[in-house]
Amino acid sequence: MVQYASTQLDGAFAALSDATRRGVLEQLGSADASITQLADRFDMTLTGMKKHVRVLEEAGLVRTEKVGRVRNCTLGPQQLADVNAWLGRYRDMWEERFAELDKVLEDMKRREKSDDRRK
Amino acid sequence: MVQYASTQLDGAFAALSDATRRGVLEQLGSADASITQLADRFDMTLTGMKKHVRVLEEAGLVRTEKVGRVRNCTLGPQQLADVNAWLGRYRDMWEERFAELDKVLEDMKRREKSDDRRK
Repeated sequence: MVQYASTQLDGAFAALSDATRRGVLEQLGSADASITQLADRFDMTLTGMKKHVRVLEEAGLVRTEKVGRVRNCTLGPQQLADVNAWLGRYRDMWEERFAELDKVLEDMKRREKSDDRRK
Repeated sequence: MVQYASTQLDGAFAALSDATRRGVLEQLGSADASITQLADRFDMTLTGMKKHVRVLEEAGLVRTEKVGRVRNCTLGPQQLADVNAWLGRYRDMWEERFAELDKVLEDMKRREKSDDRRK
């Protein structure tokens, strides 16, 4: 049996499974923003945006800080590094398998050619 | 307002938000397997594994094919390429921002040093 203790990674992927939340991360990638600014930008109620930001914050993808009456949002990098690391491992395996498949197909072609020559 | 029409990407990230499903993808990355083999490997009922495989299949991450009485699972590559592409774009922005931050910190250090010299 294979064990995967990765609740944090679960939360990060779940947070990324919403187009608005991915949009918020892209937005914060270019500049920090308050929740009000994010709500305006995504044409959303303040309550709706607060919920999305909370999900991102719980997953470690976003950090928020209250400055006076404004809650400021910035990127929280660590978690996405984990997501990237997992995908990187997976991509390597996947490319390896496709390389194997290519090799099999090439062998098949070569064999076909030599069969043609014999006819 | 920013528009993000990416229901497919939503499904792919949601499918990846479960440790068992990520484990199944890793397993299929090294060798194809039947649902029965996957259930055994992850110490899970056949019904439970069927549900996980269905989520992965609907997200385009896995392909299944019935061969006789066995349902064989293989990797479905396209969707993960989309996930990677999104993360890649995001990572670039993110690295850019950290490079900017590094520059600001360096400038601050330089200014501190020249202030020290003046004292």
